[in-house]
Amino acid sequence: MRTILIVGIGAGNPDFLTLQAISAIRRADVVFLPDKGEEKSGLNALRLRILDHAAPGNRCRTVAFRSPARPAQAPVYQEGIAGWREALVASYRQLFAASLAENETGAFLVWGDPSLYDGTLAALAELQASGMSIAIETIPGISAVQALAAAHRIPLNRIGEPVTVTTGRRVAAGEADRLSSFVVMLDSHAGWERFAGEPAEIYWGAYLGTPDELLVAGPVAEVKDEIARLRSAARARHGWIMDTYLIRRPT
Amino acid sequence: MRTILIVGIGAGNPDFLTLQAISAIRRADVVFLPDKGEEKSGLNALRLRILDHAAPGNRCRTVAFRSPARPAQAPVYQEGIAGWREALVASYRQLFAASLAENETGAFLVWGDPSLYDGTLAALAELQASGMSIAIETIPGISAVQALAAAHRIPLNRIGEPVTVTTGRRVAAGEADRLSSFVVMLDSHAGWERFAGEPAEIYWGAYLGTPDELLVAGPVAEVKDEIARLRSAARARHGWIMDTYLIRRPT
Repeated sequence: MRTILIVGIGAGNPDFLTLQAISAIRRADVVFLPDKGEEKSGLNALRLRILDHAAPGNRCRTVAFRSPARPAQAPVYQEGIAGWREALVASYRQLFAASLAENETGAFLVWGDPSLYDGTLAALAELQASGMSIAIETIPGISAVQALAAAHRIPLNRIGEPVTVTTGRRVAAGEADRLSSFVVMLDSHAGWERFAGEPAEIYWGAYLGTPDELLVAGPVAEVKDEIARLRSAARARHGWIMDTYLIRRPT
Repeated sequence: MRTILIVGIGAGNPDFLTLQAISAIRRADVVFLPDKGEEKSGLNALRLRILDHAAPGNRCRTVAFRSPARPAQAPVYQEGIAGWREALVASYRQLFAASLAENETGAFLVWGDPSLYDGTLAALAELQASGMSIAIETIPGISAVQALAAAHRIPLNRIGEPVTVTTGRRVAAGEADRLSSFVVMLDSHAGWERFAGEPAEIYWGAYLGTPDELLVAGPVAEVKDEIARLRSAARARHGWIMDTYLIRRPT
C-alpha cells in the first residue's frame, strides 16, 4: 500500500517545523511539489529551503505536479468547487500511479497547518473512497493564524470568548458583523475596511515568519490605509502575497 | 531587562515541539513550572519529559510556582476573572523578583499554543503595563485543536466555510446553535449532547498526542453515550482529563 503524508510545515519560518514533521519528511521517498506557475513560485522556493532545513543532504525524489486551478469566481461557488475537486482527485490518482511505487511513501508539504483551508486532505479522502488503496497520515503545523498571534504577542480570543476563522468572502457578506474576535484568511478585497466605522482593532500580518514579515496593529480606522498601501506595494514587489488579520470588536 | 519566553510546547506529543521552541527552551536560564496540586500533576510530568526531550542534560533551573486558582463558578463570570487576573499579575511580579535576575531569561512552557485560552500572555502584558520592565517573546505551538484534526485526519472546516473555537459554557448558552463547524475546549458538561437531535457529527479526542489518546467519531446521537462513558472512566483512572471536540452540522 502507498503511504501519503500530509505534512504541515508551518507558515514561513523554517524553525516552525516540528520534530514530527522533520521525521515525516525524512521517511518520505518522494516529496510532491505543487507547480502553480510563476505567481506563487516564492512559496516553492520556501518549500525547498524547508526541505533542506529538515533533511540536509536528503536524497528523496522531488516530483513537481500541476493541480487544476481552483475556480475563484464560478457563478455558483459550491458547484465550481465540486468540479474542481473531481479534477483534483483525478490528478492525484495519476500522480501516484506515475511517481510512487506501491510500497513507497510520498509527502505533501502543506503551508501552515493541513486542518485550515487546505484541499489536499479532502481530495485524498475522496481518492481513498473511490477505491485507491492509500494510507494517509497528517502532521499538524504552525498555521499563519498562530504566527500572526505570536508576532503581535497577543492571544486570539479574550478570556472565555470564542474566536472564528473565516474568509474574506464571508466577511464581505456580513457574516462577521456580530463576531467579537475573528481571523480572516484569503482576503484579497480589504474586507477590514468594513469595520472602520466602529471601535474595532486590527492585527494584520503578511509574509509571517519570513524575513519579509510586515506587521500593522491599531484601530481599523487609523491603520486601514497604511495596510492597503503596504499590501499593494509588497504584492507588486514580490509578485504574490499571503496575509491574514485578526479583528477584535468591543463586547 | 528580564526576558520572558512564552513557549507553546504543543498538546501532548513531545514531537509536536518546533525547532523554535527547542531553541527558546535552550536559551532559558529558568523554566517556571506551575504547581496546580495533585489533580493536574500529570501535566507537569509531561512538561518535564518535554524539557528533557528538548534540551537533554540542560542545566537551567526549574522554579515551581503556585498560581491563584481560576474561579470556576464566580457569580458574575467576568468579575471573577478580573479579580483572579489581578492576583495572577501580582504573583508573577513576586516570582520574577525572587527567581530571575535582571539580565536573565525565564520561560513558561504553555500547553498547546499560547494564543488559545491561555492567561499567561494577558497577565504578562498587564505586568508590563504596570511598570515592570520585561521583554516578552511568544513561540507558537501545536494546539489541541490541531492535534484533534490530525488524529482524525480531517480538516477543521469544509471548503470556503468558517470554523469557531469556543467554550463549553458558550455552547451550553446556545451560542453554537447556528454554527456549521466549531471546536469546543474546556467543556466538562457534555455540551455535545445538545446536538443529538439533529444530523450533526462529532470528532472527539482526549489526551491527544499522548499514549493514552482516546478518539471517537460519528453522528452525535450514536456516539454520545460512548464518549460520556470513556470520558468518566478515563478521568477516574488518570485523575484529570483534557479533551476537545469538533462538531460539524449540515449546511
